[in-house]
Amino acid sequence: MSIPVKELQLISKIRGSVPGKGKDLDRGIGDDCSVFGRRGEGRWMVSTDMLVDNVHFNRSWHDPHLLGRKCIAVNLSDIAAMGGVPRFILISACLSEEITENWISSWYEGVQEIIAEHGCLLIGGDTVLGKEVNFSITVLGECIGENPIYRNGAQVGDGVFVSGELGSSAAGLELCRKLDGSMNIAGLPYLPFINAHLDPIPQVELGQILAKTGMVSAMQDISDGLATDLGHIVKESGVQARISETLLPVSTKLSEISNYLDVNILDLALRGGEDYQLVFTIKKEALDSFECSVDNLEIQNVTRIGTITGGSGVVLEDKEEQFSDISFSGYEHS
Amino acid sequence: MSIPVKELQLISKIRGSVPGKGKDLDRGIGDDCSVFGRRGEGRWMVSTDMLVDNVHFNRSWHDPHLLGRKCIAVNLSDIAAMGGVPRFILISACLSEEITENWISSWYEGVQEIIAEHGCLLIGGDTVLGKEVNFSITVLGECIGENPIYRNGAQVGDGVFVSGELGSSAAGLELCRKLDGSMNIAGLPYLPFINAHLDPIPQVELGQILAKTGMVSAMQDISDGLATDLGHIVKESGVQARISETLLPVSTKLSEISNYLDVNILDLALRGGEDYQLVFTIKKEALDSFECSVDNLEIQNVTRIGTITGGSGVVLEDKEEQFSDISFSGYEHS
Repeated sequence: MSIPVKELQLISKIRGSVPGKGKDLDRGIGDDCSVFGRRGEGRWMVSTDMLVDNVHFNRSWHDPHLLGRKCIAVNLSDIAAMGGVPRFILISACLSEEITENWISSWYEGVQEIIAEHGCLLIGGDTVLGKEVNFSITVLGECIGENPIYRNGAQVGDGVFVSGELGSSAAGLELCRKLDGSMNIAGLPYLPFINAHLDPIPQVELGQILAKTGMVSAMQDISDGLATDLGHIVKESGVQARISETLLPVSTKLSEISNYLDVNILDLALRGGEDYQLVFTIKKEALDSFECSVDNLEIQNVTRIGTITGGSGVVLEDKEEQFSDISFSGYEHS
Repeated sequence: MSIPVKELQLISKIRGSVPGKGKDLDRGIGDDCSVFGRRGEGRWMVSTDMLVDNVHFNRSWHDPHLLGRKCIAVNLSDIAAMGGVPRFILISACLSEEITENWISSWYEGVQEIIAEHGCLLIGGDTVLGKEVNFSITVLGECIGENPIYRNGAQVGDGVFVSGELGSSAAGLELCRKLDGSMNIAGLPYLPFINAHLDPIPQVELGQILAKTGMVSAMQDISDGLATDLGHIVKESGVQARISETLLPVSTKLSEISNYLDVNILDLALRGGEDYQLVFTIKKEALDSFECSVDNLEIQNVTRIGTITGGSGVVLEDKEEQFSDISFSGYEHS
């Protein structure tokens, strides 16, 4: 589903009408989080996400405990993308008549579990009875040092990296759709893919490790697909990213699963949303040192996929050494 | 509409499972805002409210420009209730297919207008296309000094005050319901009541003035009706409030309108929601000085309605000098 005109119009009106900076505001709309607070004192980051029934989740296959975890995880991922420390959570929940007490109890247990795992506190919220289930989550995080990592710092010569594997969540979503109605997932093959979709792990610890290296020039999380999210980095930084198909990290089973699902594996890796991994650039002068840390496993689970160059957009070199612009061809929640 | 069991259950689960204080957290769930930040540095307050179509507003009579204003106003009112300075706003909007571009443009103009009036900045949000219109707003404010005004500071002997007039918004809501479908409000009698409902004014400036006096022991905004909201103060403070029917400030026209609507005027004043005025207590030792400031119009638009005593609950002395407990008999959004 593409973003409808009204939504785009509202987003564009908002973007055009608000300042990116202000008194006590280091970064406004246009990054994973906004950053506020007085210079010289602790600075805070804040982000909010709204998850709507049948848009962002499907209760027929999403266990409420895992959904509770995911509602928080997608917000923690925004803090991870800035290298911050998540601290406080606010939850507004619109429930509907058909939600049972067991369902909401299980959902809240999932929320509590992941909040505790990340040492956060639930500090506020609102509840409403409406017609459509809707969870609106706000997360507050703390900056490590004065400067969080923004999207707009990538420069020519920097290396492009991603964490984890790409396309697993999108493959999991397709599996859930295919199996709709027969979802006893415990015995299923491809369970890791289904879990990647139902219970994504926000890369909070990795984000902090990366922030502390001082080597990262730009970062964001992969929520709408690598093509779209790396597209945000290059657009905000005024540069081009050139990445190679052969370097994209995917699960060894993704090929098998893409055959089973009859979907293109490259589509899953480039355009699949909700991996909640990180895409980031490492400063040119720090590349050797960073790659050494990766080789020595001091920094785990990251893969170099390309380089920042002059120009604009995201360019993919395919296996036949042909180049194509793949910017903003990503996934929208559907 | 009373709060359904599932909502109560979720609220009670949440209340029971979260701490009221924590590292960098001075106040968690259970007041108008939560208060966070490091001692000795600027402290922040945060609150969130969710407004759902046909629960909190009715698009058939709520002009979108005024609704945009109200979505922000009800959040600013939470900051006012702590004596804080509102600074930053995040908006998540779930729109539905039936929302026109004109409607959402007008709504957003209302949002921009009230944000500008209060010197705030819009710093984040999310947009979704769903089936039910839902606005989730988060507001961040700054504490004046180290200590915001909480609900739990009222002590025996303190005076009980309210700002503005009571029941006007509830009367306006009843008028809107009665006139549904014939709402050319410009020429209507009782327009101030309709405006009180459609375009409430959060008492941000008064909240700050009161906070700066150092005389206020407890405060909260009147969103669910005086009986309920004063009930929160006495419950959190472990005291009783005794208020007098003859002292309740109501518009001189409220009697006329309550006849026209065939509703009880005392019900409107005690149980009518959404006035977004302030109810607060003044420390016993500061009462003379405070009442002198009120008499000299240094502090305007406030009325003493009673006194804090030992015991529990909110007790009303009626015109026949009979006493009755009216705690928690307030309005729920309907």
